[in-house]
Amino acid sequence: MDLEARAHAEHPEELRLWLRLLTCTQLVERELRTRLRDEFETTLPRFDLMAQLERVPSGLRMSELSRRMMVTGGNVTGITDQLEAEGLVERVPVEGDRRAFSVRLTPAGRKQFKAMAERHESWIVDAFAGLSSTEIQALHQLLGKVKHHFQEIA
Amino acid sequence: MDLEARAHAEHPEELRLWLRLLTCTQLVERELRTRLRDEFETTLPRFDLMAQLERVPSGLRMSELSRRMMVTGGNVTGITDQLEAEGLVERVPVEGDRRAFSVRLTPAGRKQFKAMAERHESWIVDAFAGLSSTEIQALHQLLGKVKHHFQEIA
Repeated sequence: MDLEARAHAEHPEELRLWLRLLTCTQLVERELRTRLRDEFETTLPRFDLMAQLERVPSGLRMSELSRRMMVTGGNVTGITDQLEAEGLVERVPVEGDRRAFSVRLTPAGRKQFKAMAERHESWIVDAFAGLSSTEIQALHQLLGKVKHHFQEIA
Repeated sequence: MDLEARAHAEHPEELRLWLRLLTCTQLVERELRTRLRDEFETTLPRFDLMAQLERVPSGLRMSELSRRMMVTGGNVTGITDQLEAEGLVERVPVEGDRRAFSVRLTPAGRKQFKAMAERHESWIVDAFAGLSSTEIQALHQLLGKVKHHFQEIA
């Protein structure tokens, strides 16, 4: 199924661009979901949650963790419960706030994330293997303009 | 929150490209969700479902409709029920299969979709207003190479 089929010829080039952008993002995401499942029996939201925690060794409060998640569709509390039961993350009290806690990776979680992140990186390299290094830079730069435009209008 | 913060300098350029691609897709999607809610009190999955039906006037079976959805997170049966209650879609029997039905837009649904699609198109034009026509073509062509690579390895 080619999502771009929706972009009829009479539509502006921006719409065709948007559908292609969405298609490419979904192709990469689907590849990541399949490989995470096949090689690590895990999901993209679980990987994403662990990736956010990996960047902040001291841990993140649930609200902050939810805000940082890059993929949608995951239930942050549910995933945290699962990962905690598996010994990959732990809840720790927040100093100075008796009712609050934050979540952080355990040493086992850190180790497992590292293994997944290395594979993830190589899958991403494979995903863009159709482009030369010059093309990767050109694409990065053009998408930078798109992003910059959003920052200006925000 | 800048998702690209995750791409540390030691990571390959492909990873930085992927995070920027994901960021741009999410920026456009967030804009669409906000505007659909503010201007039409609707959601992206509802818009997406109606867009799929608009392309096939005779209607689609639920399974085919699910398969064609471009955005994740929507419950196709639930959305269809809602839209049917609002008179925007209708379930019709499938000829030659007593137990099956397909879903199609009603005239009211078609009219409402047309109004949304026109606005959607102008939001998309705005989203890429940071690019010249030449840059839009270059971006479209580079993303075409990414897509083509996936078709080759599939």
